[in-house]
Amino acid sequence: MAPSPELVDDVPAYLEAVGKAARKAASQLRSASTEVKNRALNAIAARLNGARESILAANQRDLEKGRVSGLDAALLDRLALDDGRIDAMLEGLKQVAALPDPVGEVSDLRYRPSGIQVGKMRVPLGVIGIIYESRPNVTIEAASLCLKSGNACVLRGGSEASEANAALSACIQQGLADAGLSSGCVQVIATTDRAAVGEMIRMPEYIDVIIPRGGKSLIARISREARVPVIKHLDGVCHVYIDTTADPAKALAIAVNAKTHRYGTCNTMETLLIDAPVADLLLPELARAYAEHQVELRGCERTRALLPQALAASEEDWQAEYLAPVLAIRVVDGIDEAMAHIERYGSHHTDAIVTQDYALARRFMAEVDSSSVMVNASTRFADGFEYGLGAEIGISTDKLHARGPVGLEGLTTQKYVVFGDGQVRQ
Amino acid sequence: MAPSPELVDDVPAYLEAVGKAARKAASQLRSASTEVKNRALNAIAARLNGARESILAANQRDLEKGRVSGLDAALLDRLALDDGRIDAMLEGLKQVAALPDPVGEVSDLRYRPSGIQVGKMRVPLGVIGIIYESRPNVTIEAASLCLKSGNACVLRGGSEASEANAALSACIQQGLADAGLSSGCVQVIATTDRAAVGEMIRMPEYIDVIIPRGGKSLIARISREARVPVIKHLDGVCHVYIDTTADPAKALAIAVNAKTHRYGTCNTMETLLIDAPVADLLLPELARAYAEHQVELRGCERTRALLPQALAASEEDWQAEYLAPVLAIRVVDGIDEAMAHIERYGSHHTDAIVTQDYALARRFMAEVDSSSVMVNASTRFADGFEYGLGAEIGISTDKLHARGPVGLEGLTTQKYVVFGDGQVRQ
Repeated sequence: MAPSPELVDDVPAYLEAVGKAARKAASQLRSASTEVKNRALNAIAARLNGARESILAANQRDLEKGRVSGLDAALLDRLALDDGRIDAMLEGLKQVAALPDPVGEVSDLRYRPSGIQVGKMRVPLGVIGIIYESRPNVTIEAASLCLKSGNACVLRGGSEASEANAALSACIQQGLADAGLSSGCVQVIATTDRAAVGEMIRMPEYIDVIIPRGGKSLIARISREARVPVIKHLDGVCHVYIDTTADPAKALAIAVNAKTHRYGTCNTMETLLIDAPVADLLLPELARAYAEHQVELRGCERTRALLPQALAASEEDWQAEYLAPVLAIRVVDGIDEAMAHIERYGSHHTDAIVTQDYALARRFMAEVDSSSVMVNASTRFADGFEYGLGAEIGISTDKLHARGPVGLEGLTTQKYVVFGDGQVRQ
Repeated sequence: MAPSPELVDDVPAYLEAVGKAARKAASQLRSASTEVKNRALNAIAARLNGARESILAANQRDLEKGRVSGLDAALLDRLALDDGRIDAMLEGLKQVAALPDPVGEVSDLRYRPSGIQVGKMRVPLGVIGIIYESRPNVTIEAASLCLKSGNACVLRGGSEASEANAALSACIQQGLADAGLSSGCVQVIATTDRAAVGEMIRMPEYIDVIIPRGGKSLIARISREARVPVIKHLDGVCHVYIDTTADPAKALAIAVNAKTHRYGTCNTMETLLIDAPVADLLLPELARAYAEHQVELRGCERTRALLPQALAASEEDWQAEYLAPVLAIRVVDGIDEAMAHIERYGSHHTDAIVTQDYALARRFMAEVDSSSVMVNASTRFADGFEYGLGAEIGISTDKLHARGPVGLEGLTTQKYVVFGDGQVRQ
């Protein structure tokens, strides 16, 4: 049973009760059948569909409060729900229900000389805490991925979406009950008190991992203060390196797509590196294409010798995640200088080479230490759906546990299983 | 280049220099060929073999200091080196050289509808910090596993072994140079100042993961204070549950082996759970076997009704990791009570069921949330060598990243690799 809301005033006591309920529910979910989990996902979708009016009314109250408190237009837009966005939530729930269940998969099962059979079984992590901002649809996305992967979850949305999140939480609770699952399986924190975040990230006895989704300062704060392991996404300072042997048409297509397909995403290229021998051939043509998209260019001296319209790039530009129609460009002498630049300034997120040279492609793949490394493809492909994960809870720039797009598998772990016939250790 | 020893007096500056050298070396090691890494391992073995005298002399100085400062006999024994223990180090280095290189393995490479090919490549973690106590052979073990998995490492041994560790470090440095690898690949911290540990666990910019090996208080302190992810081993409160359908001979063999094969290991059974219908048949026979090994028994009331010689078990006994010839015994009513006991009192390390019942075996496997779950085998098998990992750096009781015995694969991570032919995102 999830704790009753009257506890909310005492934040530590409330979070402790939430944690206990989550731990208990995790035991139930660990061995819940695929059929029960899918039934819950479909039931939540049905409940959402039946509660459109109350969800939209709750969202209106959030938006009204947001306008009064002066939230900017972009934030209000992310906050806003309409029938289309509710349809997208229903669709998401159905897609997750249709994904294969990762739990219980046994791999590498082998006989050992002692006669025992040893393998690894994929199992849920336990309790996942997710801390996020503004967009209320994350509540449904996160709940669905955690449920399908057999994890209980504790969700802490932004205070600006508290009314909508409460309405969504009610639907989730009804859906869980419809499927015979306990209310502790998905708990949406019912207080906007910021102290709740501080409590959540300091209860390793109840929460196995924290996934923060939001701005850089939120994530940095959580990483610094957490006593629970964190799977996080920090920066996306992504590079495309165009080598001399690159097919010019492919280089242009990739460099333009990686920058201009969407500006605000973490897998957008922020710095273009180009090999000196092809810079004079390709940069002017690239500049024309970027001009059509109103992309501002900032270049090194060699770039500016070819593109006088480019501003001078500073040290900060090489480190910048613009998330905007701005691009830094550097002319380099060969792959070693390109890889040294990526190692020094990059964020180990996604980096691509455009080349027709087999040996350089092979070196770039092996030596660039990023969560996604690409040959002759746009960095924009670094995405759970494009990679075939079916859904993603986020992209990890961490190295431990999950790296790159995190889908259902990233929400699980593997335990060893041993099948014997009475064997003992000699 | 590793920092020069004169820096050691300024611990933060020294550790920063160590961290920088490690990060640089990690770049080199990431793309080092299998052949170069194996050459280094074999060269270190040759250098160790040639330096036996100086290593043993250094060890004598450690032992002398230890005797003066009043270290107990067990600790002095773990500290002591002789030709046999040096032989074991050489053998270990050769075994690690013979293991397959985990780095570069590409798995799950598939075409996506967009035309890109997506897979995962196994790559080193980067820089691994290992903090350990007394036994100097850990210096060689840890260095060899990190090298083979392509990771730079920073090793902090116990101050009581500082002379031997310095002698071993000199051999490692010579071996690295023989193979053309930089001295930053393996750095043994050259100060016994305890502040060095505090620095190591707070430099996420230089160290990717900390693996503590040692007593519970060391590990608890490191987990509490670290700002770097930690892969740790806490308790081993392991259980064997004997179900009513168990083959009596196998149940006896497993229950005796799991307790008495070795007392001080983390995978030793600490609590025996037995189903009520077979308790009167099996407990007296088990008690006779344990008596032969001078194992002290502490039981619940139902156990004591059958075994009057058993002491009364208290709440603390169910939580105890005795690491000694002591066993707690509880009579339970069926698998649910057994699993509830394991969930409440266990440490999620290794738990086994002895049963001939297919459905119960299947439930135990799925529902017990431990790093190793076994059917009809002794808990003592939970070990990297027995599982076929070839070598182990430790056993993780964490859930994220690595769970159970951690071998070379646990010291690596996977990045996504994308092969395209000019594809862009639509």
